[in-house]
Amino acid sequence: MDRLVLHEYAESGNCYKVRLTAALLGLPLERREYDILEGETRTSEFLARINPNGRIPVLQVGDRLIPESNAACFYLADGTRLIPVARLDRADMLHWMFFEQYNHEPNVATLRFWIAFVGEEGLSDLQRAQVPAKRAAGVAALKLMDAHLQRRDWFVGDALSLADIALYAYTHVAESGGFRLADYPAVQAWLRRIESLPNYIGLAD
Amino acid sequence: MDRLVLHEYAESGNCYKVRLTAALLGLPLERREYDILEGETRTSEFLARINPNGRIPVLQVGDRLIPESNAACFYLADGTRLIPVARLDRADMLHWMFFEQYNHEPNVATLRFWIAFVGEEGLSDLQRAQVPAKRAAGVAALKLMDAHLQRRDWFVGDALSLADIALYAYTHVAESGGFRLADYPAVQAWLRRIESLPNYIGLAD
Repeated sequence: MDRLVLHEYAESGNCYKVRLTAALLGLPLERREYDILEGETRTSEFLARINPNGRIPVLQVGDRLIPESNAACFYLADGTRLIPVARLDRADMLHWMFFEQYNHEPNVATLRFWIAFVGEEGLSDLQRAQVPAKRAAGVAALKLMDAHLQRRDWFVGDALSLADIALYAYTHVAESGGFRLADYPAVQAWLRRIESLPNYIGLAD
Repeated sequence: MDRLVLHEYAESGNCYKVRLTAALLGLPLERREYDILEGETRTSEFLARINPNGRIPVLQVGDRLIPESNAACFYLADGTRLIPVARLDRADMLHWMFFEQYNHEPNVATLRFWIAFVGEEGLSDLQRAQVPAKRAAGVAALKLMDAHLQRRDWFVGDALSLADIALYAYTHVAESGGFRLADYPAVQAWLRRIESLPNYIGLAD
């Protein structure tokens, strides 16, 4: 495989997903840090050379660039045990990964960012007005996950897949966004299962 | 392949993506309609039997259910010409599909829904306050697409893929959300390329 470079902001759960996938697969990954709070992913150089969308993570593979955390994870895991071989299970894995980006991340991750990184006093009026709706939508996503996990160990089939990694990234730090993980015992048991995996790394590792 | 049933709301671009993918591949698809404006995807029966997330589309394959439009498209197209064989291109296709659900749909599709379906007078204060930010983010997504398409015919590599279908669904009706497609000539040329494909069907077909 070509040299792998992750353009990232280390505290981002989206970037951590890519590092965790690489760690579980034993793939070496170089890291380049950009401070999103200082606008380092919005410079003209970043937009021209790394990602015109101004966002991290971007996985660099040789001279090719793959934005979007879940696409980067898919690249790393393509052909490995982290992507189910059965066609329906593979689609079901993607279902949970799209759910993560649409229903989970804009609520659970955004509230973490607003509360723990920007700070409540730094929010705009529009952001502050959106907090209750994002809180309710985040709770709904966590409840749905908890109900799903009451009957199984992993999101898809009988084994760990990228669906678990994608959903783990912001769920395990949801309390810093004001969510109560104790309300979701099946989610908590699943978090511990992931943390017991060989080669697991934490967000701060 | 098992019998395919699409649980849908026909006016939804997300549902149309699945129909367009099936049409381009020549796959027969039964359709079941739910009126989202009447709450038909929030009934206890729908939540228990079709999708606990209360959303359409859901693709039913035999007795398995696949929510999330882009996951359903992936299922239908798995192993066909609509998904690139090259590993990097396959990840790049997913990059655009996640971009679509994160940067495009919540802005371009939501403004269409709010303006053309709910009606501006029916919006809540919070929704009305979000319109300018969604307008700016939708314009940014369309600009990024236009810049990308200035140098190529299709989003990934040299051929049509699910990335094009996913992004086509809400782009081609963006004007009903108040966006001006004339501002994006490369996007307009790409829309015409898709509409010239054999077996193409329109949103209302």
